[in-house]
Amino acid sequence: MGKTPLWQAIAASLRDDIAEGRYGPGDKMPGELALAERFGVNRHTVRHALTLLKEEGLVHSRRGSGVYVLARPMDYPLGRRVRFRRNLLAAGRLPELRILGIESREATAEEAAPLALAQGDMICVFHGYSLADAQPISLSESLFPQTRLPGIAEALRDGKGVTHALQQAGVADYTRASTRISARLATATQALHLRLREGAPLIYATSINVDPDGKPVEFGRTWFAGDRITLTLENDGLA
Amino acid sequence: MGKTPLWQAIAASLRDDIAEGRYGPGDKMPGELALAERFGVNRHTVRHALTLLKEEGLVHSRRGSGVYVLARPMDYPLGRRVRFRRNLLAAGRLPELRILGIESREATAEEAAPLALAQGDMICVFHGYSLADAQPISLSESLFPQTRLPGIAEALRDGKGVTHALQQAGVADYTRASTRISARLATATQALHLRLREGAPLIYATSINVDPDGKPVEFGRTWFAGDRITLTLENDGLA
Repeated sequence: MGKTPLWQAIAASLRDDIAEGRYGPGDKMPGELALAERFGVNRHTVRHALTLLKEEGLVHSRRGSGVYVLARPMDYPLGRRVRFRRNLLAAGRLPELRILGIESREATAEEAAPLALAQGDMICVFHGYSLADAQPISLSESLFPQTRLPGIAEALRDGKGVTHALQQAGVADYTRASTRISARLATATQALHLRLREGAPLIYATSINVDPDGKPVEFGRTWFAGDRITLTLENDGLA
Repeated sequence: MGKTPLWQAIAASLRDDIAEGRYGPGDKMPGELALAERFGVNRHTVRHALTLLKEEGLVHSRRGSGVYVLARPMDYPLGRRVRFRRNLLAAGRLPELRILGIESREATAEEAAPLALAQGDMICVFHGYSLADAQPISLSESLFPQTRLPGIAEALRDGKGVTHALQQAGVADYTRASTRISARLATATQALHLRLREGAPLIYATSINVDPDGKPVEFGRTWFAGDRITLTLENDGLA
């Protein structure tokens, strides 16, 4: 088993500091000397760690001034009503959804089950990725029951997002029935779209959205950049 | 940016097949020839991919018979009542909690906040890891307000788990107030405890548990093996 190089361990520690808000956006990071003292290493090692964080887009240097935090991970609330645009706007970020492709094809057995369809039923598959303030935050693949939602493919092509497309297809409202969350490493293709290193940590979530009658209207698979997003789950007063 | 070696991409695809239940525990995987055809590669490449999955403990070979799925990721429900032992027993797994260390010390400002304490207040810190059927599934660090929970350190040393220790310390019941979820790469130390490769994907979750009056009784940080656990979130009929 390999040993984490010191500079990578220091980068991980500073990444956690940023992720947990100990240094917020716009904050100046401690100087190289202070960090070298804190971690008991030389300045060269600290500089190496900071370079990695710069490459990841977490911090940037201002010449002659120091290193500043660019962004902290965005909170992305999970609950009964999960809306991409609303979540981003609530976090003060500008949402954008880019379309990679839309196809219509027969569902495999595994795709049919979460949508309460039979194998071979037609589905509409949407491939896209999402940005917050022009920074990619997630890649996604959404499956829709095509026969139940005529016109969904055309509506998705509008680029106004899933909520709008579902409305166009006759689904006035929908709620999140379930979410399943795991972790994955970014493949080369995912890294390219998300502007991450290959092998970077991703949150992998699958979700089922249902209409007011409880019928599935969307089965989604999403890969979130693990350093840029924190999924949050608040339990309110309900028993 | 590097390119994923073919055998790693094939391993990732088979890992997803297992994770999503297309091959369940005890199922025989398709033969090398069938997999080579499916992925359009030679048998050597397939064998390389299967070797990785064996090292990860997802499959094993029976001589002269084939490769079988050992386990699929365990569902770990998140909700108002999150209980490690109950979650594992419900999944048909044998739960076990191992203690790495228990310390009492002053809280930093960042540790004090989620526990509604002041910086410098005493906390009890529990370090441990959890196993399901003797396979490590998570590393955790739990912080408890020591003054509010006299005797918590001794109760934790019993090794009967957090729920039991909290009861000993006078907390008859507790509920999950919030959970925050991200993804991280395993450090060398984490990999050692979790019997994973360094750099393997981990689900990183922080959580706050409160007593019936809403007072925080535990702030937890947990690193789950991303290939072994799926956090699940079901929204029932409540609005």
